[in-house]
Amino acid sequence: MRDLSLRLDLCAINTATLGHRSPIEEVIELVARHGFGGICPWRRDLEGRDAQTVARRIRDAGLQVSGYCRSTYLPALDKAAFDAALADNRRAIDQAAALGAACFVMVVGSMPQGSRDLPRARAQVEEGTAILCEYARRANVRLALEPLHPMYANDRSCLNTIEQALDLAERIEPSQGARPLLGIVVDAYHVWWDPHLARDVRRAGMAGRIFAYHVCDWLAPTRDMLMDRGMMGDGVIDLQMLRSQVEQAGYQGLVEVEIFSEQDWWSRSAHEVLSTCADRLQSSC
Amino acid sequence: MRDLSLRLDLCAINTATLGHRSPIEEVIELVARHGFGGICPWRRDLEGRDAQTVARRIRDAGLQVSGYCRSTYLPALDKAAFDAALADNRRAIDQAAALGAACFVMVVGSMPQGSRDLPRARAQVEEGTAILCEYARRANVRLALEPLHPMYANDRSCLNTIEQALDLAERIEPSQGARPLLGIVVDAYHVWWDPHLARDVRRAGMAGRIFAYHVCDWLAPTRDMLMDRGMMGDGVIDLQMLRSQVEQAGYQGLVEVEIFSEQDWWSRSAHEVLSTCADRLQSSC
Repeated sequence: MRDLSLRLDLCAINTATLGHRSPIEEVIELVARHGFGGICPWRRDLEGRDAQTVARRIRDAGLQVSGYCRSTYLPALDKAAFDAALADNRRAIDQAAALGAACFVMVVGSMPQGSRDLPRARAQVEEGTAILCEYARRANVRLALEPLHPMYANDRSCLNTIEQALDLAERIEPSQGARPLLGIVVDAYHVWWDPHLARDVRRAGMAGRIFAYHVCDWLAPTRDMLMDRGMMGDGVIDLQMLRSQVEQAGYQGLVEVEIFSEQDWWSRSAHEVLSTCADRLQSSC
Repeated sequence: MRDLSLRLDLCAINTATLGHRSPIEEVIELVARHGFGGICPWRRDLEGRDAQTVARRIRDAGLQVSGYCRSTYLPALDKAAFDAALADNRRAIDQAAALGAACFVMVVGSMPQGSRDLPRARAQVEEGTAILCEYARRANVRLALEPLHPMYANDRSCLNTIEQALDLAERIEPSQGARPLLGIVVDAYHVWWDPHLARDVRRAGMAGRIFAYHVCDWLAPTRDMLMDRGMMGDGVIDLQMLRSQVEQAGYQGLVEVEIFSEQDWWSRSAHEVLSTCADRLQSSC
């Protein structure tokens, strides 16, 4: 397990952690100035901007791009909407390529409004991912399926465990010894509860399919299902155990902080948030 | 799959659905008058009462006891607290026996305050369940482990999937063809998202380990993690599909409604709640 003390260069900041309150140019500057090694921008950060220009700015600041967030939801009620989602994701994959992102983060969506058919949503995700995988191969962009906590199973993601995401990846792109193009994000917040966590992290790592590792904490109590993620160390997740498993499985990428926290961290100054992230990455992760 | 129309005798009401606002004697009367076949009381309903007397009252009203809720959490920071939890659960098992309950519902708890050790909580649950299983055998009470939704993994239950609960049951009481004493509750709210739902329901049923089947619905959006469960038909769960799987797996017990809904259903009259339950059980389950 890597020692993160004095190694913030091994750590990255997902721009959501700062609440998307400042232009990406400022955020790049801040993240670099605090000593982090990488940044993971969202599509909204690039609105009205040229991806190449942003990419150069990130490089010039000495940062890696640990990922690019995130896919448009795939399941849809009709073919036109499904195709539109694919088209939108192709544009995002192009941006991920321009950014030189370590991966394009896929939050896949779930049942469209009015549907109760979860198996159908899952089938659509598989179909759409297979199509995007071909496109991503040509763009040389890795796709990272992010299994989301089951409390988001109805809307944000019908992929809810590492096992499920890996099974899907293996069906679309069977292991053949080659460097895989389809992998997963291990996000502590989404998977910490899983009884098969150790087994499935090992499996994912051995297959070379861990493309990103996200940290934050699960607060007890959690007051909001979306917007109350905790700073590392403030909750109940054994983050050191999880990182040791992820790294023993072979992951050598950045440790990325992603915190959605409307009431708490998003109301604090970017400086305070980033300083605390730096501190906790070195003491509680 | 059974046809529930005009068969409310196949359905039961968990007293939590009425918000514990009236004495159990009134609730028994109301549930029977609305035509349901069973009731599942909570320990709080029996406070200051003799279990035998309540049992007689339920029998006299023509109701079955579909279950008895629920266990005291097992994981604890020290042995004294662990032993106290066991003792409390033994008293509850005695009450379940007196009530003639189809099962004692085990919500097992999780990490004690201050702990981040989920594997240890799970080990304690296994140790405690094995001990209680011996006691329950002598009392002739079936124990029904209830896997809870992973959003409760930190406090209410470290058992979070059917597979995990079944694995635990099999380790403590291996299948030997006999009628098992240790089984599970399948609660739609907790398990509907599970990618292995069909497989694991089948496994549970084939092992004769489905002791109770609970219904309510997952609202989209869900406004509160504990207190915003929906009435069947108002949410996104494919309840008819799930019941068909549960019954195809051999379950022939009651279909029990359990709704925690502080802001909505608990603020309505018992009559309205029970009428709506009756209607939805026959149309949306």
